Amino acid sequence: MYNFQSDYLEGCAPEILEEIIKNNYKQVTGYGLDEYSNEAKTLIKKALKREDVDIHLLPGGTPCNILAISSALRPHEAVVAAKTGHIAVHETGAIEATGHKIIEIEHRDGKVDPKALIEVLEKHNDEHMVKPKMLFISNPTELGTIYNLEEIRLLKEICKRYNLYFYMDGARLANALAFKENDLKLEDIPNYLDCFYIGGTKNGALLGEALVIVNDELKQDFRHQIKQKGQMLAKGRVIGLSFKTLFENNLYLKLAKHANKIADALRYVFEALKIPFYVESPTNQIFVILDNDVIKKLQTKCEFIVWEAYDNNRSVCRFVTSWATKEEAVLEFAQDLREFLK
Amino acid sequence: MYNFQSDYLEGCAPEILEEIIKNNYKQVTGYGLDEYSNEAKTLIKKALKREDVDIHLLPGGTPCNILAISSALRPHEAVVAAKTGHIAVHETGAIEATGHKIIEIEHRDGKVDPKALIEVLEKHNDEHMVKPKMLFISNPTELGTIYNLEEIRLLKEICKRYNLYFYMDGARLANALAFKENDLKLEDIPNYLDCFYIGGTKNGALLGEALVIVNDELKQDFRHQIKQKGQMLAKGRVIGLSFKTLFENNLYLKLAKHANKIADALRYVFEALKIPFYVESPTNQIFVILDNDVIKKLQTKCEFIVWEAYDNNRSVCRFVTSWATKEEAVLEFAQDLREFLK
Amino acid sequence: MYNFQSDYLEGCAPEILEEIIKNNYKQVTGYGLDEYSNEAKTLIKKALKREDVDIHLLPGGTPCNILAISSALRPHEAVVAAKTGHIAVHETGAIEATGHKIIEIEHRDGKVDPKALIEVLEKHNDEHMVKPKMLFISNPTELGTIYNLEEIRLLKEICKRYNLYFYMDGARLANALAFKENDLKLEDIPNYLDCFYIGGTKNGALLGEALVIVNDELKQDFRHQIKQKGQMLAKGRVIGLSFKTLFENNLYLKLAKHANKIADALRYVFEALKIPFYVESPTNQIFVILDNDVIKKLQTKCEFIVWEAYDNNRSVCRFVTSWATKEEAVLEFAQDLREFLK
Amino acid sequence: MYNFQSDYLEGCAPEILEEIIKNNYKQVTGYGLDEYSNEAKTLIKKALKREDVDIHLLPGGTPCNILAISSALRPHEAVVAAKTGHIAVHETGAIEATGHKIIEIEHRDGKVDPKALIEVLEKHNDEHMVKPKMLFISNPTELGTIYNLEEIRLLKEICKRYNLYFYMDGARLANALAFKENDLKLEDIPNYLDCFYIGGTKNGALLGEALVIVNDELKQDFRHQIKQKGQMLAKGRVIGLSFKTLFENNLYLKLAKHANKIADALRYVFEALKIPFYVESPTNQIFVILDNDVIKKLQTKCEFIVWEAYDNNRSVCRFVTSWATKEEAVLEFAQDLREFLK
Repeated sequence: MYNFQSDYLEGCAPEILEEIIKNNYKQVTGYGLDEYSNEAKTLIKKALKREDVDIHLLPGGTPCNILAISSALRPHEAVVAAKTGHIAVHETGAIEATGHKIIEIEHRDGKVDPKALIEVLEKHNDEHMVKPKMLFISNPTELGTIYNLEEIRLLKEICKRYNLYFYMDGARLANALAFKENDLKLEDIPNYLDCFYIGGTKNGALLGEALVIVNDELKQDFRHQIKQKGQMLAKGRVIGLSFKTLFENNLYLKLAKHANKIADALRYVFEALKIPFYVESPTNQIFVILDNDVIKKLQTKCEFIVWEAYDNNRSVCRFVTSWATKEEAVLEFAQDLREFLK
Repeated sequence: MYNFQSDYLEGCAPEILEEIIKNNYKQVTGYGLDEYSNEAKTLIKKALKREDVDIHLLPGGTPCNILAISSALRPHEAVVAAKTGHIAVHETGAIEATGHKIIEIEHRDGKVDPKALIEVLEKHNDEHMVKPKMLFISNPTELGTIYNLEEIRLLKEICKRYNLYFYMDGARLANALAFKENDLKLEDIPNYLDCFYIGGTKNGALLGEALVIVNDELKQDFRHQIKQKGQMLAKGRVIGLSFKTLFENNLYLKLAKHANKIADALRYVFEALKIPFYVESPTNQIFVILDNDVIKKLQTKCEFIVWEAYDNNRSVCRFVTSWATKEEAVLEFAQDLREFLK
Repeated sequence: MYNFQSDYLEGCAPEILEEIIKNNYKQVTGYGLDEYSNEAKTLIKKALKREDVDIHLLPGGTPCNILAISSALRPHEAVVAAKTGHIAVHETGAIEATGHKIIEIEHRDGKVDPKALIEVLEKHNDEHMVKPKMLFISNPTELGTIYNLEEIRLLKEICKRYNLYFYMDGARLANALAFKENDLKLEDIPNYLDCFYIGGTKNGALLGEALVIVNDELKQDFRHQIKQKGQMLAKGRVIGLSFKTLFENNLYLKLAKHANKIADALRYVFEALKIPFYVESPTNQIFVILDNDVIKKLQTKCEFIVWEAYDNNRSVCRFVTSWATKEEAVLEFAQDLREFLK
Repeated sequence: MYNFQSDYLEGCAPEILEEIIKNNYKQVTGYGLDEYSNEAKTLIKKALKREDVDIHLLPGGTPCNILAISSALRPHEAVVAAKTGHIAVHETGAIEATGHKIIEIEHRDGKVDPKALIEVLEKHNDEHMVKPKMLFISNPTELGTIYNLEEIRLLKEICKRYNLYFYMDGARLANALAFKENDLKLEDIPNYLDCFYIGGTKNGALLGEALVIVNDELKQDFRHQIKQKGQMLAKGRVIGLSFKTLFENNLYLKLAKHANKIADALRYVFEALKIPFYVESPTNQIFVILDNDVIKKLQTKCEFIVWEAYDNNRSVCRFVTSWATKEEAVLEFAQDLREFLK
């Protein structure tokens, strides 16, 4: 039985595990002030080619989103996101729980539509409405698609014109960066985004993400916010060791390249078997349309997510590969699927 | 250089580390629904001798407090705590950030004073005031003292009379249970408390705590709350493996007994050198009153926390031992202190 | 210059003013516990033919919505509303500020579409999503349309099946009740709704609305909520006197009938002049589509609200009549409009 | 039966009532943008001798406090107040409901103790604690005492040194200003306070208070906040007419002088009858210590508030006079009290 449910199903990359073992008895300061976290931050800054950013290592993606948004906004200010955005759908109202409305707008394959964005910004023009103050994107999006440099540049321009902060959820950022046709480099991101996070949980870390704050306005007292929202782990060392190792010897990209490569293999399988794609995604999430009876059979052999009904007989299914997925899993899957399609 | 700053300075108990290594490549469901978490819950229920409780494994103590309190209270309801309570002082307003007032009352060595409690409950009698609906205690307290069974019984009676939920922060619960004169057994706790947590972070877990919900009224949709507050780790396996191992072969108590034993040794050192105690605590936190110039010298050799000024020349200092503290550290410390007192 | 901007532009009905004058020096208890408020509640209960409801007199519509929703929901629960719903658009995120998501769904002329409602309820089925727990409608809607008895019955059925509270914003309820083809009587409402408010501000009160809580689950400690949200006026007498008078001698309906009658006259004018309606509304709000150059001319003579662009050359405009609008205003307006259309 | 319960028991000053009557049919813009509100603001600015302040007319004192505090603070920031402060005790957790902790400190007769203030500010020095960012005072205090100019100056200096906003609840400000030995003039206040409100509800307005924002940092988008918190009355005209009239012909001070004068008469009565004062207050609130059996007898003749138990046989009682209290009430009361003391 193989599992394509998500990319956080295994423990952590072996290089990280080694570091955890090696340093287990070393006494270090708690709450993210340990030496591993400090080294991790230095390495990430180097990778970003920026010394002037603040980096906070946090336990998960929802924590990053909660903190980046709630710390930046005044009570009447809102964040704009695609209807499919993770904060809009799959965080149980975490943002609203901090008091802020999410203005949900139309998307194209999970990406914010600039025209829909401008329309909604123009409409919010008086004190009886919330004031849009931040744009949220995910990259890759929840549908596995990615933004190219020009798209990011255009959204930034809109943000500037309308005085919005620009924030990016990078839960699977590594998989975007590892895609060879991607033209948005890691070091470009701080030139456009005010704040973003580099995902670890879904790319081989034992757990954790690295939130990067670029805009000085958003930096003040951020550790107070982290503590208040219950996101300051006494055992910050775990995230520190994860990110220190991920950013040594290019491990971060190496792991994502593996996941993407396996995803490519899986894509070939679907193509070869004439399975239609729901969306064209170049990263480690694949969305295909399968007959419901095929799905049932596949589920006896394999775990994956049935995303939503497509029509009466077919459903959209999501398959995800990870830094740890083996090629054999794809081969085995291909055989099974071929069998079930007969 | 030895370090008595706190009990979360090392990685994790070797037994846990082994489990993490052994299961690293195993694919398991995320978000706390993995098999390790399930085993952990089964073992904890067994230790509690209760099948009818809900258990949630959470990444830290502040998250437990935030969730237990904010999920239970309606907007106008408040939690009562000792002035020294962790939620009142050291969580950056985490409870208030969820909308609830903490009514702070007098304490005796960190323990809630029943008389002060009743007084404040009697006073809150109209709609212009918040309605007290929960009592918060820490056991051991922030000053290392513990509640005995009779004290818990009395507080429970007050809670019943005034219709309060009774909640316990057990960040260092193991150290209370491991104290030989303690008469409050683990399995007693669900008979008195509506909700409490069993600390792991400070007793050898890689990270995490086990929140136990006893009262049925507090159970509904709790996982929605966890997700909303950003406390549902995709990598729930890490906490699952920690608690599964802690509750196998009595490891949980074994680790705490070690910490307490070393603390006893440290207490003897202070007694022998005629250093006055700030409070009489039987667990792994020791509070003593030291001359400020001695403190300065000690700080060249040893890390510990200067808690607060005692008078113009002396300060209260906190020394904490852990599951990993070695006896040699105490011996070395004794020599240094003796030297500095000369 | 006449003004059709809204129905709260004048002071109050003369009958209310008389009461205010008459009782000015009488000393009464504050905070809504005065004798006028008590009388008002008695009269409203009589009109509702229900003794078992709780009534709270509040200063405005947004306060009613904030209180009814935030008092009823637990942190992870959400309210469902039409995209055009007042809480979704025109209350500056007041509901989100209390921590709750508004799930916005499609509407038909401002009314909740039952199919869209069921779809969204079916989708919200796990702990990564908010839990829908209340349905919000406005009656009349923000577009002046009204729900008939059968529509209310159907929505109630859906609420029951999915375990939702059913709440109605009745800012202009009088205008629905005063419409002769309306088949939903005031005394029917408590049979279907768990909570609703009877608007006063827009129907001749000096200020205020009467929130009616039908469902016992929503009644407890409601005055605590009112105080906490800053909605307990020391001078509750003002709202008390307004509602006491409105519910004597059928004044409440009489005022609304006047507003509707004048609105009918205005509708005839638009029809006669072949101005297309944006929506068919039977109450005191009229939405028509006017050429932008006609609008500019009209604005020199008359105040009204330009609702939104209809196309490049035309806009939707809203005209509202009130208990105090005079027939002459309509005649004068008719002459002006005819002139400008030439 | 005469009533000394509070100063909001009557309707409004006759001058205001006349204005309400006179303008009843005039159509004016809603939401506080009416011409009366504008005139009121102009008059208040004139009285303050400041053109550069923002003024918002709000329905009550708790709304002013909620808005001034929640709009100014970031999530981790707290407000410091005396333990007896209205926000700390009698607003049902309204401030905490917006997410902010109130740090409660010792007081002297209701006034913030500068030493206690400095102590608490010094202690809040790391990210595990909230960050004090605003000082709240009431003037007169909840015990009827007032701050003199030098006390205000000193608190301002502390606020400056520790980077706090300085905010004043002026529910009964008129009664402080009307006290002849008071040396803090209305026009002094903006030189020291960043934000404060001038109470109307308790000084003859039909309802409402005037919030004055002095510090530019606190001004932005304040009307968004008002709307979000449900404090933007469609019928803003009522508050506008009240304040316009209060600030014409010095009515504001005239009404307060009357209340103070009657309070002085009442104080003489207590002095003459050798009733001890609980606190020495120079304004329209009087706190005396009465035997419990005398209280019972008095309650048959007169309404007042039994504040708290003083000892087993005596209680602190509060008597308040208003702009409308007649001298005869005092005379009658004096006779009754003398009788009951026999």
